[in-house]
Amino acid sequence: MITDPPSGTRDFLPAEMRMRQGLFRAIHAVFVRYGFEPIDTPAFERLEILMGKYGEEGEKLIFKILRRGERGEQAEADYALRYDLTVPLSRVYARYQNELPRPFRRYQVGPVWRADRPGRGRFRELFQCDLDIVGAEAPLAEVEVMSALAQCYWEVGLRKFTFHVNSRKVLMAILEGYQLPAEQHTSVTIALDKVDKVGAEGVAKELVERGIAADKVATIRADLASTDASDRARSRAALTEHGRTALAELDEISRLLAPVLPESATIRFAPFLARGLDYYTGCIFEIYHPDLPLAIGAGGRYDNLLASFAEDKSIPACGGSLGIDRVMLLVQQSNQTTPARSQVMVGVFGQLREEALAIAKRLRRSEISTEVYCGAGGNLGKQLKAASQLKVQAFVMQGPDEKAQDSVMVKFLATGKQETCKLADLTRLLAATLPQT
Amino acid sequence: MITDPPSGTRDFLPAEMRMRQGLFRAIHAVFVRYGFEPIDTPAFERLEILMGKYGEEGEKLIFKILRRGERGEQAEADYALRYDLTVPLSRVYARYQNELPRPFRRYQVGPVWRADRPGRGRFRELFQCDLDIVGAEAPLAEVEVMSALAQCYWEVGLRKFTFHVNSRKVLMAILEGYQLPAEQHTSVTIALDKVDKVGAEGVAKELVERGIAADKVATIRADLASTDASDRARSRAALTEHGRTALAELDEISRLLAPVLPESATIRFAPFLARGLDYYTGCIFEIYHPDLPLAIGAGGRYDNLLASFAEDKSIPACGGSLGIDRVMLLVQQSNQTTPARSQVMVGVFGQLREEALAIAKRLRRSEISTEVYCGAGGNLGKQLKAASQLKVQAFVMQGPDEKAQDSVMVKFLATGKQETCKLADLTRLLAATLPQT
Repeated sequence: MITDPPSGTRDFLPAEMRMRQGLFRAIHAVFVRYGFEPIDTPAFERLEILMGKYGEEGEKLIFKILRRGERGEQAEADYALRYDLTVPLSRVYARYQNELPRPFRRYQVGPVWRADRPGRGRFRELFQCDLDIVGAEAPLAEVEVMSALAQCYWEVGLRKFTFHVNSRKVLMAILEGYQLPAEQHTSVTIALDKVDKVGAEGVAKELVERGIAADKVATIRADLASTDASDRARSRAALTEHGRTALAELDEISRLLAPVLPESATIRFAPFLARGLDYYTGCIFEIYHPDLPLAIGAGGRYDNLLASFAEDKSIPACGGSLGIDRVMLLVQQSNQTTPARSQVMVGVFGQLREEALAIAKRLRRSEISTEVYCGAGGNLGKQLKAASQLKVQAFVMQGPDEKAQDSVMVKFLATGKQETCKLADLTRLLAATLPQT
Repeated sequence: MITDPPSGTRDFLPAEMRMRQGLFRAIHAVFVRYGFEPIDTPAFERLEILMGKYGEEGEKLIFKILRRGERGEQAEADYALRYDLTVPLSRVYARYQNELPRPFRRYQVGPVWRADRPGRGRFRELFQCDLDIVGAEAPLAEVEVMSALAQCYWEVGLRKFTFHVNSRKVLMAILEGYQLPAEQHTSVTIALDKVDKVGAEGVAKELVERGIAADKVATIRADLASTDASDRARSRAALTEHGRTALAELDEISRLLAPVLPESATIRFAPFLARGLDYYTGCIFEIYHPDLPLAIGAGGRYDNLLASFAEDKSIPACGGSLGIDRVMLLVQQSNQTTPARSQVMVGVFGQLREEALAIAKRLRRSEISTEVYCGAGGNLGKQLKAASQLKVQAFVMQGPDEKAQDSVMVKFLATGKQETCKLADLTRLLAATLPQT
């Protein structure tokens, strides 16, 4: 039988899990320090909650679930695994807005599922750490979100990262600058968003396929291929009044963000960044590290998404997401050592099981991580071998002789040193000898 | 639009999340102290991994997923959401057994999904904390697992709980004692397992429906309805040699477990306990608290499950699961208070945003949980109201006058006391005044 996990998903074994737990703890501490509160939502949502939110590319990747129970096998797929944590937040805010503060700063950590083509750093079950501020205005909310994300990277040891920032409004102004008709904006945006992956020629090819007029494609290609592509885009955006307003807002975010970022982090204007999700309305950003070609974080402002749930009340919001799997890839390169699962193994001499359990109880009470040997067979050699395989620090056993004297045998595995001590002194001896965890 | 979560699933808002996080932390600490290592597995498995493991009742409740991607909408349901954490563990152990120690003690914490009928303490998305020992022999492995679970309940404040223990082997011996043919054992077991819910009459009714001979049903009904039902069952099991062996093994587990349990916990022989899952082979148990009619934990020995993945290598294993949702129901009754999300709110005076961000940066560096006001409008009254709604301890703001003097205004919300202090002294002032978190 094939025992691999499903394609694009992963099993995490103890060594990796300990590193992940360390990352989650560090990130959690930052979120708390920035005043974000935890929420959690179900793994699946009713399908109608998710549809129409992620654009033409995203919607294809939603995993659908057969609702079971009374209707049995024949039921339709009316549930779907969550695709991100932003749409669930919007539903939650709409549902509980009278119980929640405003502005509402929340974080949520957990998996999301996308039927994407698997690859390095690209999974079908991926873990996100999201933080968002609902009821929050530009530019401060953007700066708070990006600053908290930056602090997370910093605390887990990532120093050099770059915020690629843009604004949906700037992007729209650029498209207007190309005098493209409004009905082509979405289509062109999707093509432009791929410029970092496929280059100017690749974008041009897709634009042609999408039926964009040849003269427009030529202009766009020339802009993208030029060495001052970013300045050219800026000039196109600045042709209109609302383009200039959008640029000023984005510049203000960058100006406020710079001094709260670590000095090793940078901000780059990325005029063709679109983000694949339909719901963004203002500032958008992606975060890159030099050692990985995929974004390690992303986010933006989505002022209309909540209104779609909360019945036409306009609720501004902005947030960001930290891609924990990609951060792990980068952090793993520094390859920390992980501690053994137990500090002490208590061996079992013949039928003296009760005695072994009593010793373990005593040690655990003193917060010493302890396991009782539960394997088959019971000779001392086999038990010591198991202790050594597990890299425990000490092996303890009480045989009949030791029992008669209320004492135990202790063997320290690193040094091979073996001694007998009174049972009453065991905790003190081990606490003094073992490294603190 | 309906903004409720899907039936049988839940949204967790911040106050409840903080309690849950506290529970998870406490349980995690116990698992570590008992020498269990963390693993994680995907939310879904290939369907064939899950089928044939959970018995006739369980299998109906598996949520199936449409595999997406290249084959599009028409793809068959070939994935399914995990139904428990034991089958995934078995798959993982078979897949990675050369990398894992033996005995292997692992814990896993996370949701599982069952298309059950929702009710109080009964969810379609439920959270389990599982701990198991693979490659472990009776009776010590059972005692270690049950003892660790008991310690978890103890640490989260649950004192009075009862282990209902039985053994699949004892149950089989009882059925033999009734001289039931082997092909009726599974069917009778399913009916007997419900005795606590439906009583002797209910079981008898189901037995008749299941086609059991009338004289057998009468005998079983009389046994179940008698005041010494447990002793009668014991006598039936003791009619055969292997029945007596099975009883002796179960008694030994109880004898070893008793001294390591808290004094307020009890152990009860439950001869008709079957556990609904097909894979158990030896000792089985459920844990009950007097304030809830549903089990708050359960587990048992499953010596053949791993063999079904690991190609006929016999690998003994036993484990238990703590029902975090039901534990939460019980713990919530003690209704702890939860801290506010931030200790300090930094207000924004007009356009002095950069100044507000710099103050927040300073406080966060000293581990003071801080948020910058990001709401709309900006007058002092509105900002103070938001600070008060969030129950922060202090509100800090720098206006032009304070800025000219390198100072800030600080207002303590509990007392209403307001003062001005030098910016350089702010962290010290707050650290000395705010309660430690």
